Amino acid sequence: MTQLDITGQDAATLETAPTRYIEGNGIRFAYRRLGPATGTPLILLQHFSGNIDAWDPAVVNALAADRPVIAFDNAGVGRSTGQTPDNVAAMARDAVDFIDLLGLFEVDLLGFSLGGCVAQQIAAEHGQLVRKLILVGTAPKGGEEHLLAVLQDAFSQTDAPDPRLPLFFTNSPASQSSGLAFLKRTKVRQDDRDTDNGSAVTDPQAKALITWCATPDPGHAVLRAIRQPTLVVSGSRDTMLPASNAYAMFKQLSNAQLILYPDSGHGSLFQHHGMFVSHVRTFLEAQSATA
Amino acid sequence: MTQLDITGQDAATLETAPTRYIEGNGIRFAYRRLGPATGTPLILLQHFSGNIDAWDPAVVNALAADRPVIAFDNAGVGRSTGQTPDNVAAMARDAVDFIDLLGLFEVDLLGFSLGGCVAQQIAAEHGQLVRKLILVGTAPKGGEEHLLAVLQDAFSQTDAPDPRLPLFFTNSPASQSSGLAFLKRTKVRQDDRDTDNGSAVTDPQAKALITWCATPDPGHAVLRAIRQPTLVVSGSRDTMLPASNAYAMFKQLSNAQLILYPDSGHGSLFQHHGMFVSHVRTFLEAQSATA
Repeated sequence: MTQLDITGQDAATLETAPTRYIEGNGIRFAYRRLGPATGTPLILLQHFSGNIDAWDPAVVNALAADRPVIAFDNAGVGRSTGQTPDNVAAMARDAVDFIDLLGLFEVDLLGFSLGGCVAQQIAAEHGQLVRKLILVGTAPKGGEEHLLAVLQDAFSQTDAPDPRLPLFFTNSPASQSSGLAFLKRTKVRQDDRDTDNGSAVTDPQAKALITWCATPDPGHAVLRAIRQPTLVVSGSRDTMLPASNAYAMFKQLSNAQLILYPDSGHGSLFQHHGMFVSHVRTFLEAQSATA
Repeated sequence: MTQLDITGQDAATLETAPTRYIEGNGIRFAYRRLGPATGTPLILLQHFSGNIDAWDPAVVNALAADRPVIAFDNAGVGRSTGQTPDNVAAMARDAVDFIDLLGLFEVDLLGFSLGGCVAQQIAAEHGQLVRKLILVGTAPKGGEEHLLAVLQDAFSQTDAPDPRLPLFFTNSPASQSSGLAFLKRTKVRQDDRDTDNGSAVTDPQAKALITWCATPDPGHAVLRAIRQPTLVVSGSRDTMLPASNAYAMFKQLSNAQLILYPDSGHGSLFQHHGMFVSHVRTFLEAQSATA
């Protein structure tokens, strides 16, 4: 176990923090760490195809104002070594290895999309390690996904400056405008940017996400095993992983709060970043979700 | 039109503010006003059978920390004169008369249960008057209600110190404990307490609520007419007006945010008062619900 070097990192932002590396079990994980030295760290679990620089600085930096926040590349992703697995269970094991390498014994998880599936798997299996859970734009095992159809449609829009505009935002002017602002924020960092992912990452990730949704879990075993306070978030018009997934997860989880945002798609947390950060802070700071 | 006398009321609480009266159109309305002199006033629309003192001081006083908040008895209720109507449309007209009498031309509305039906009706008809809308534990026109069955069950629990314990809270120890704390807060005020309501109020109110839910609105005309940013809130296990109503309203409203709380019933806003106040403030302070 390696202790986390946190000296002098308080003022760093997602755009300025150095990328750090930690190695164990044959994998060298790339990560950035923001925020104060004390407090329960919030670990960010990224979406399909995303790397550390695909997070929104407006979300990450604001959350890091009063808690340690750690963004990382899971095995094989971005500048982490190793193979990207083709299943959620193995991604969860890799993420837990990373958390263990940092020497952390209690964390909060924020999982977005595929990262939300990984977060569910970790929380279900590691009741002591995970204090609170935030699931955004994600699906339960056996949930509803339209990944291939929507990806195909998005990549066919050759006039879109970035596939995330049609994938993460609705076609309303307000949402598209928020999308452009989000993309701009993600491109501020110039030096030491993370590596874009190719098909060695996205092919197994797509298989993992589609398999997760295609695998029935009639007894909701994963959701029923999650005892941690959970905040479930979705956009009103998520075309990849519809908001009905969020409502279904809320109903099966033993201690969940549900927040759905207006006129928003898969990237609701980036579009409504101000409200999202406020909601996450309120949730993480509550003594308990039922207090 | 009578101007509101707000001098020196800044430090008042729901428990200490004097009950005031304002008269027009043959009705003398009882009300209390809290909070600063400036800002968009938040008008509270109360549940079936409730009076001004049935609001939770923990919610009302915290909301009044940074905005004017006005609790009142609608026509016939508590210490207001006039007849309690047996339909939501007439209740909405009475409430608008009250707001007009105060000389207010732009307000936010927080409607709880039956008050949420009244708030929907007002917002749908008065696009200019209502800036933002908060709907808690309520139903759309044509929605699902189990009022009579649940009331009968609650009043048959003769060992419950107050029917609101089984009606507003779940049977979990945490929820029941929150319920007792809520009841205690509502009983702090001794002098100048509001008058309890008898059947001259509750009979027409029950008819209004049941009729509202029994009247189909296949085109969702009321919800579609609401253009204001709306926050929809419900408890996970509301036995009178189930959370499915909240999800259904969220899907039909053009600009709504949905928040559902864990392990909570009809009185989710009182059980989770700290989170609820934080969520309402975040919602009311947002530049727009899609910003």
